[in-house]
Amino acid sequence: MPAFTEKVEQLIKKKNLISPEMRIVVGVSGGADSVALLSVLNDLAPKYALKLYAAHLNHLLRREAGEDAAFVQKFARSLGIPTFVGYARVSKLSRIYKLSIEEAGRRARYQFLRHVAKKVGAQRIAVGHHAGDQVETVIFNFLRGTGPAGIAGIPLQNKEIIRPLLGVTKEEIEEFCCERGLKWRTDATNLTTEYMRNRIRVELLPYLRRFFNPQVERVVLQLADIISEEDRFLEEQARYLLRKMGQKGGEGEIRLPLTDFLSLPLAVQRRLLRLLIRKSGAGLKDVGYQHFDSCISFLREARTEGEMHLPHGNRMFKGSGHFWVSTAGKQDKPAAMQEIKRDLKIPGITEIPELGVTIQAEIKPYQENFYFPPENYQVCFDYDKIKLPLCVRTRQKGDRIRTFGLKGKKKLKKLFAELKIPPSERDLVPLVISDGEICWVVGYKRGAAAPVTEDTRRVLLLTASKSFKD
Amino acid sequence: MPAFTEKVEQLIKKKNLISPEMRIVVGVSGGADSVALLSVLNDLAPKYALKLYAAHLNHLLRREAGEDAAFVQKFARSLGIPTFVGYARVSKLSRIYKLSIEEAGRRARYQFLRHVAKKVGAQRIAVGHHAGDQVETVIFNFLRGTGPAGIAGIPLQNKEIIRPLLGVTKEEIEEFCCERGLKWRTDATNLTTEYMRNRIRVELLPYLRRFFNPQVERVVLQLADIISEEDRFLEEQARYLLRKMGQKGGEGEIRLPLTDFLSLPLAVQRRLLRLLIRKSGAGLKDVGYQHFDSCISFLREARTEGEMHLPHGNRMFKGSGHFWVSTAGKQDKPAAMQEIKRDLKIPGITEIPELGVTIQAEIKPYQENFYFPPENYQVCFDYDKIKLPLCVRTRQKGDRIRTFGLKGKKKLKKLFAELKIPPSERDLVPLVISDGEICWVVGYKRGAAAPVTEDTRRVLLLTASKSFKD
Repeated sequence: MPAFTEKVEQLIKKKNLISPEMRIVVGVSGGADSVALLSVLNDLAPKYALKLYAAHLNHLLRREAGEDAAFVQKFARSLGIPTFVGYARVSKLSRIYKLSIEEAGRRARYQFLRHVAKKVGAQRIAVGHHAGDQVETVIFNFLRGTGPAGIAGIPLQNKEIIRPLLGVTKEEIEEFCCERGLKWRTDATNLTTEYMRNRIRVELLPYLRRFFNPQVERVVLQLADIISEEDRFLEEQARYLLRKMGQKGGEGEIRLPLTDFLSLPLAVQRRLLRLLIRKSGAGLKDVGYQHFDSCISFLREARTEGEMHLPHGNRMFKGSGHFWVSTAGKQDKPAAMQEIKRDLKIPGITEIPELGVTIQAEIKPYQENFYFPPENYQVCFDYDKIKLPLCVRTRQKGDRIRTFGLKGKKKLKKLFAELKIPPSERDLVPLVISDGEICWVVGYKRGAAAPVTEDTRRVLLLTASKSFKD
Repeated sequence: MPAFTEKVEQLIKKKNLISPEMRIVVGVSGGADSVALLSVLNDLAPKYALKLYAAHLNHLLRREAGEDAAFVQKFARSLGIPTFVGYARVSKLSRIYKLSIEEAGRRARYQFLRHVAKKVGAQRIAVGHHAGDQVETVIFNFLRGTGPAGIAGIPLQNKEIIRPLLGVTKEEIEEFCCERGLKWRTDATNLTTEYMRNRIRVELLPYLRRFFNPQVERVVLQLADIISEEDRFLEEQARYLLRKMGQKGGEGEIRLPLTDFLSLPLAVQRRLLRLLIRKSGAGLKDVGYQHFDSCISFLREARTEGEMHLPHGNRMFKGSGHFWVSTAGKQDKPAAMQEIKRDLKIPGITEIPELGVTIQAEIKPYQENFYFPPENYQVCFDYDKIKLPLCVRTRQKGDRIRTFGLKGKKKLKKLFAELKIPPSERDLVPLVISDGEICWVVGYKRGAAAPVTEDTRRVLLLTASKSFKD
């Protein structure tokens, strides 16, 4: 077994990334990293009885993208590995969601990989990030502003996603490919798009190596590993404390006892606040260092009652010896929320500003290799089977939904609870209705109506531009 | 009260740096930072009933150093603050201890400040590091390789040393000095000597501000603050666990139960190992990331007994369900250690290679403003009162020592225990003997023999070049 494979296997074993007999979807762009990843995992497959699947998403951004897909299919076939190719109009997604091309591509890619994993029943998704990506990420976060989690960098494992190449460098990967006679394709966009990351790689790192530390990459990786473990430990501590100290208030609020909180070390207070704001449904968007600072000052104040503002209209309250976070939804809920109802233009674009959502409907011919988008922000129906017209409305008392694999219907309230949608947000979730039946809970889940099958000729594609629930 | 003073006071209050009625020694170089520091603390002195002392160490490196001292004395006198001026031959110290000029200067400075604090009974020593110093330190550590403690940067408080200006920038300091009409002196060496730090300040930071983040300093300071609190919390956790789990072995060894240790999260294991190696007396010199990694692999191995090497001849052992660290001293103790004895050349240089120490003896005329060096690596005697010849030897059974303020003598063994010298090192501590009496435990403490007083005419200055115990 070559030294490279051994090095990768060591990391897999040390960090327990896979177990025997797992099914693993491998994201393969066609670049050296993912080609090496597929090849190495294929080396290890017999020993661990792994079943591998290759998955490639065509971003439809470049002319040569089709050749990349063909290259990946040919390479995987040579190893006897089944391959899935999907398509995503990343430039369009980036416009709709007001994301950079890179970010839209990243999200579409992971959603495609999860989709394939679900389809084949895989327990792991392997992607080809290497040590160089890790170093760039840590330096990028360090410079742009971050807490410990940013210095911890890209996780080696995050739920089902694993990154077995994080311990090897780009040079080692290319050397391995050359030794083994593996070919790879170079993504030209990679060299021009990600401005800051490229500057780190091409300009900053060589400068730091020359004038500060020839081993700068190594020391950054070691720091990331140390801090990632400490970050994980502290997160677990905070979770434990929230469970232990938290009491349920009204409307999904979690109340913490003030005196107990103030007796904790500052480091733990910050972690606990962060978790509380997140778990209360307020979200951490735009919540920064200075907010934690203000929260702690507010809680330390002698006054026993009061409130303070958090970003996006959320608030923190204290009173009767406790404190809690209340989301904007609870404060500013429009009085006549139940009455929102709008017909969908098909094809066309329908705006529902009260819910902050725009839904685009398109009719497409069905092709083989059609990419079934994940059901939270894009969804496909069989256009010839779905009952028109469609409309969008918010929830009503007694709403039920039929989902795949379910006999009969489930209460929408129960589904909302399963999806962990905070009560304060539930009146704002758009529902797409066909013939009185909920066929899509926008941002979360589709119903079982009119699925696309092999008999489908025309596809109705709905795309929602509400903020992602990724 | 000016905004600047208020900002400094806020940090002092928030982080509890001083208490009312404290005596504080302020290190004053004569630069803008320390001039502002003395001025601000003088503003706050009436409110908190503080008693201030200024202290300036002349490094004897530059011609203008004498003028700096005169400038500081004049400025402090104008505020009615008593001033101490000391002298250190930093270039000589740097040669003897094989340290950079900066490092030798830094050590001499802190030792002088501690010396003055002891003399006046001060509870705090304030030094003028500001936010810019903090940013440089964090970036320096990040690039050279560090754990969380290095990202935490310069501590706001470390035992008696406090840094009230860490929350303000160089610009704010200079603005404050200008507004108040305070003059300061610029240290020319500062611009040329500290190569890496200057490169960070002059070249790297402007580049990062321009191409990555105009607020790079702010985000680095916030990261440092978050990580310093988490670092402190994790250290306390590790200390608690070591006390709870540790069992005393032979020769000052601390034994930890293997199964309990292996059940801890990796982050805690690393912290605990670090503390164990330190507390066992092996020291952390040259112990890096890879050693902790190897230690943990060694402890995880199925073998129930074994040993592994650590730097400088130290070793880790496991057996009978426990593990512990053994210092080099215990392994390689020379058989005939007790017999080491050497006469001191006065004046002159005496080498004792078996103990890794060189002692230089000089005879100096006594002057006013004579700097009394701290007793661990340099010591002064009244040359006309000390009984010659002097010799150097290692400890003998029944050794006793007479120290200042003590009636009669104390067992040397007791002193060693008080000084927390590990048993394994005790046979290697050089003792300077005059007329059968221990007059200096080299590296630690002097005896009460022949102190320098106002009547002293000639001083015997002994300088040891053993590695510092700072």
